[in-house]
Amino acid sequence: MADSLVPETRVLAVASHVVYGHVGNSMATFVMQSLGCEVAALNTVHFSNHTGYRQFKGTRATAQEITDLYQGLRQSNLTDFDVLLSGYAPSAAAVEAVGSIGIDLQQKAKNKPGSFFWVLDPVMGDQGRLYVNDDVVPAYKKTIHHADLILPNQFEAEVLSGVKITSLATLAEAITAIHRTYSVPHVIITSVQLFRLSQSGSTPNPPENFLTVIGSTTRSDGSPRLFRVDVPALDCFFSGTGDMFAALTVARLREAVVVAGNGLQTTKSWVSPDDVPSSALPLAQATVKVLSSMHSVLERTLEARDAELAAAGPTQNGDLGPEEQQKQEHLRRTKAAEVRLVRNVRFLRDPLVQFTVQEWKKEDLPAQFQ
Amino acid sequence: MADSLVPETRVLAVASHVVYGHVGNSMATFVMQSLGCEVAALNTVHFSNHTGYRQFKGTRATAQEITDLYQGLRQSNLTDFDVLLSGYAPSAAAVEAVGSIGIDLQQKAKNKPGSFFWVLDPVMGDQGRLYVNDDVVPAYKKTIHHADLILPNQFEAEVLSGVKITSLATLAEAITAIHRTYSVPHVIITSVQLFRLSQSGSTPNPPENFLTVIGSTTRSDGSPRLFRVDVPALDCFFSGTGDMFAALTVARLREAVVVAGNGLQTTKSWVSPDDVPSSALPLAQATVKVLSSMHSVLERTLEARDAELAAAGPTQNGDLGPEEQQKQEHLRRTKAAEVRLVRNVRFLRDPLVQFTVQEWKKEDLPAQFQ
Repeated sequence: MADSLVPETRVLAVASHVVYGHVGNSMATFVMQSLGCEVAALNTVHFSNHTGYRQFKGTRATAQEITDLYQGLRQSNLTDFDVLLSGYAPSAAAVEAVGSIGIDLQQKAKNKPGSFFWVLDPVMGDQGRLYVNDDVVPAYKKTIHHADLILPNQFEAEVLSGVKITSLATLAEAITAIHRTYSVPHVIITSVQLFRLSQSGSTPNPPENFLTVIGSTTRSDGSPRLFRVDVPALDCFFSGTGDMFAALTVARLREAVVVAGNGLQTTKSWVSPDDVPSSALPLAQATVKVLSSMHSVLERTLEARDAELAAAGPTQNGDLGPEEQQKQEHLRRTKAAEVRLVRNVRFLRDPLVQFTVQEWKKEDLPAQFQ
Repeated sequence: MADSLVPETRVLAVASHVVYGHVGNSMATFVMQSLGCEVAALNTVHFSNHTGYRQFKGTRATAQEITDLYQGLRQSNLTDFDVLLSGYAPSAAAVEAVGSIGIDLQQKAKNKPGSFFWVLDPVMGDQGRLYVNDDVVPAYKKTIHHADLILPNQFEAEVLSGVKITSLATLAEAITAIHRTYSVPHVIITSVQLFRLSQSGSTPNPPENFLTVIGSTTRSDGSPRLFRVDVPALDCFFSGTGDMFAALTVARLREAVVVAGNGLQTTKSWVSPDDVPSSALPLAQATVKVLSSMHSVLERTLEARDAELAAAGPTQNGDLGPEEQQKQEHLRRTKAAEVRLVRNVRFLRDPLVQFTVQEWKKEDLPAQFQ
């Protein structure tokens, strides 16, 4: 079992905490720990459950509280982190407070290239809609300059790049813009539904029931080095999958960088030499393993959800009005879709499924990117 | 790997959270998750680090905040817990708020004996000294009546029983008093240094470098059914070991009760029939596995601590005054003694060392307990 652990990695994880279920740090902490990472979890909110239930109770940390906790670590020399994983923060000021933590850790590591790496998940919205205050967007735009890897979803990539993603061409344009605008060397856009995009170049779109994950590590001239992985989509919405993706990526990227050797681990931002093709990038190798683990866990979650829903049958209580009955049914279905994490840990440690990473070749790109 | 998981168990864990290191829920959550338990962590404090560093920053939850989080779970039907593990609470009102949670869960389960079990760690102090406010003691005394298993250390057992533990006789007296006063069916007194106690009965005290863990499950007449396990003591103080003990006990006791069969799982408070000898109690079987896991993890922690301290050498900085130098050295030694949890998970899952559980026979007890 010790063999399936990734190299020793100390992670500061700054994200939300929920008592029940697995999103934010309540997902990421266990995922990274299972792979052998030492995780320090700084929680930006403390909620009873995730917001998909449409009701919750709990508290949000203020920017000052986040800063204080970090100062607590500093004063006792407890900031020897290899990686910062930053996720949801509940206000623009909180995003800036987390940004200052990242900048401070970077500053401490500045004479040791590669000794600190910042993975930033710019949690702002999904499906065409912001679910944070408007002022959170400029706060992220200021912060992302300092990150080494960002993990926007399709909507967040649009917000950050200013490019509406409607085709492979505009997807490439968005990634190029993100590399250029924010000087961020690594990007993964999690879950793009390519079948909805218009076709361009010679690479066919995957079929309708597939999701595509697109990533890129810049070359030294700042141009993108794009890869893509297509994975079968599962017919259910699961909360916390973005956090699972981010946490697995931290562990698997670190592992792939160590495996790559050739001093990559001590290279600023772990950027591979220009002659490494996109499919051989540590980021691409990591993504394949990440998606494999996720697919197995979510497949089993779907089975367990279906069994749970079938066992009890839908909420039918004549004493409840139709609105209350609908609400109870929503709660039941949301609970049933909680990711089945702890008893599927073997799929986190030992990914089984083999997905294929595809280089996104120059000839597949629109003319201006070739 | 799936084989080393305990039966499916949903635990509500109410205790402290630290960003860095492993105490409270920052210990217990991962320990229980590693063994396959689904853990909902409700955090009573959010500190940067444990108090053994002698400095920390962070926030304490109010009683109202604890209650609100639980109400958040209730309103979304997320209270289907098999076990409550309650640990540190930062005030008397918070202890009472946690108590109300336990009572509510018990109430919900009252028509299904054995379907809910409450493990209570009455965190009040250690080594002869309270580290909570005086009013926390009566709050615990009111609450413990409802618990199924309590895990006091020697000092806390003295506080709860009113008996000063100075000998095997007074130890038996304390446990008997706890069973009787609080109607609590299971007790484990964690770490008693028996070599310091005066001898009584025919069972010899263990040698000086051993710790003794004493447990008991009542018989139907309320009398104690005592067992003891002696384990080699390690020459270092580790924070969070009480929380590791409690978390492992939740998982292993649940496992042992399922293994015991004969309807024990659906018996109120999982109390074995009177003819089960103390050494065959699920509580005793669990304790042996718990201590085995702990011994392996702590042995490796000690090795890693020594290596870490040797690698850097003591704090020597001429620019610091002697007081500051001493403080820095304390911080360094405290950090080095953080329990090495995540990379030793195999010892949690598959305990190797074989400790022996001893029945504490009637003839070893002072006359009034025979």
